[in-house]
Amino acid sequence: MSTEPSALAMVPFVSVDHMMKIVHGTGLQTFLTELAAYIEEDFRRWELFDKTPRIASHSAEGVIELMPTSDGEVYGFKYVNGHPKNTKQGLQTVTAFGLLADVSNGYPVLLSEMTILTALRTAATSALVGRYLAPKGSTTMAIIGNGAQSEFQAHAFKAICGIERVRLYDIDPAATEKCARNLQGSGLAVETFRSPEEAVEGAQIITTATADKQYATILTDNMIGSGVHINAVGGDCPGKTELHRDILLRSDIFVEFPPQTRVEGEIQQLDPEHGVTELWQVMTGAAAGRRDAGQITLFDSVGFAIEDFSALRYIRSKLEPGSNCIELDMLADPDDPRDLFGMLMRAG
Amino acid sequence: MSTEPSALAMVPFVSVDHMMKIVHGTGLQTFLTELAAYIEEDFRRWELFDKTPRIASHSAEGVIELMPTSDGEVYGFKYVNGHPKNTKQGLQTVTAFGLLADVSNGYPVLLSEMTILTALRTAATSALVGRYLAPKGSTTMAIIGNGAQSEFQAHAFKAICGIERVRLYDIDPAATEKCARNLQGSGLAVETFRSPEEAVEGAQIITTATADKQYATILTDNMIGSGVHINAVGGDCPGKTELHRDILLRSDIFVEFPPQTRVEGEIQQLDPEHGVTELWQVMTGAAAGRRDAGQITLFDSVGFAIEDFSALRYIRSKLEPGSNCIELDMLADPDDPRDLFGMLMRAG
Repeated sequence: MSTEPSALAMVPFVSVDHMMKIVHGTGLQTFLTELAAYIEEDFRRWELFDKTPRIASHSAEGVIELMPTSDGEVYGFKYVNGHPKNTKQGLQTVTAFGLLADVSNGYPVLLSEMTILTALRTAATSALVGRYLAPKGSTTMAIIGNGAQSEFQAHAFKAICGIERVRLYDIDPAATEKCARNLQGSGLAVETFRSPEEAVEGAQIITTATADKQYATILTDNMIGSGVHINAVGGDCPGKTELHRDILLRSDIFVEFPPQTRVEGEIQQLDPEHGVTELWQVMTGAAAGRRDAGQITLFDSVGFAIEDFSALRYIRSKLEPGSNCIELDMLADPDDPRDLFGMLMRAG
Repeated sequence: MSTEPSALAMVPFVSVDHMMKIVHGTGLQTFLTELAAYIEEDFRRWELFDKTPRIASHSAEGVIELMPTSDGEVYGFKYVNGHPKNTKQGLQTVTAFGLLADVSNGYPVLLSEMTILTALRTAATSALVGRYLAPKGSTTMAIIGNGAQSEFQAHAFKAICGIERVRLYDIDPAATEKCARNLQGSGLAVETFRSPEEAVEGAQIITTATADKQYATILTDNMIGSGVHINAVGGDCPGKTELHRDILLRSDIFVEFPPQTRVEGEIQQLDPEHGVTELWQVMTGAAAGRRDAGQITLFDSVGFAIEDFSALRYIRSKLEPGSNCIELDMLADPDDPRDLFGMLMRAG
């Protein structure tokens, strides 16, 4: 009749500090590479997942979303917000946390910060997709938008695609300076530019990662030469796009989950019937990726729940109780499961 | 350039142990009464809430659900599972936790255990509804199903409706004994019975709170005399009901949120067009509650996100940092919001 929580009541929690410890303990490049392998594994078994578009609660200032999925054995979801104006108030545009639970009994098994983990999984997914779609032997990536996601993209494309050089541009030169400074010592050659036209010159891969909550035209048609791979990361909610429509019409478009991307991605600018290729099919070999050197490929990235699921699975594999997580007394677990009330009263 | 988390990064967390402290610090009956007032307040401003049926992930063993809502200023959601077979393995049928966040910036402001809190809010909602629908001067309640929810129901109806006597029945006599034992000293007169027919005799209020995941007939038509109020708590997912259909046809049926109750409640047995009354309209005075002494009223309770929102709001009002909650380092909050990567690197 103890009132001490039982082991079943405890859920491992990975704080922001723990997450940083896990990244540094693993090494950033190794972390991104291993994480990409988890994501790829889940893309390859895509069909067995419970898939639903994210559940969004929109307001004038931004959006709060829940992104659930399940592989039948493990259930996961992420809470994530997107508030573009937060930056001006010294807050993060995006914060997130996530959870895994055991499908067989519904008990949570991991709670984790996901602000940092989302940045890592977004970059790992981009680079994983880049490995399938970017021109063979790509060495140079332009990054348009040098905010919170930019350095993660640079490191992931270095680790996973062998990128050697990044060309940076942001409408705010201070963001570009921050990004360049953070990439010192990364092993990447970094160049900064004062216009997007200069930044994309000679790049085989163009990453856009801007955060405006509006229709914007970060890339215009004349900036996109044949054969490039575009990694469009920033447009990820209704009314928010980065690319001129003409670019989309010249590109072969690859997406995570069409019902979600049609609403949130660059392709919200296109007819709902416009053909797109699902990435899981490229990764299983059921659909072609890049077919020739002249083709423009476009990853219309919006971020899907399965990628977060993969990231949480990966973090779970890294847990070292007492070192990189704490146990939270989060579940009431009375000795007699029908006696929740008795447990409460005995604590009195 | 500190790597210490900022105040913005911290989210108050109410553990199971903290929740029990809050309940005992407040007093159970006062807690239930205050909680019911929060729920009533939100029912009265029902129209301004973002409402969506819960997002359920079903498996052979049970269900995992997310229940989000927002009043435009505060966003909340609950994670909850329902696994009827858990009891046999010594686990809770239902575990839950929840979160509140600031709509204006998306930052979480409270994370709380909700296994205990859900039990309390379910009972508080039942009793609040009972105050509107039960016969005037009701003194006696039958409780069919004496599992984890039963004592909470008894206490809530005592605190909020002035019930003096409970009549208990469960298919498992050990559950009834447990419930009776837990209600010793509650101020309620407690009687136990070996059949549901005996238990409901003379009761003005009949609460059903069984947990089978199947169509069951806990109450048959001949057991229900005129004028009673039925508080049907247990049937709360597709394929799970407790009442014979004939009872529904004789009752005036009151529900929380029709699109959800049509799928999950007792009324899944009825034509989708069958008339029901929304409780918020009763509480605002827009619709009638009980009209006469002979009427059978039925609260087809399934539990709605707004009740959890109210419960979390109430808990937030009770927070005493350092005493009944801890601060979790859950949000990455770098000095420069665009410099998430820099924060990560400085921690290395």
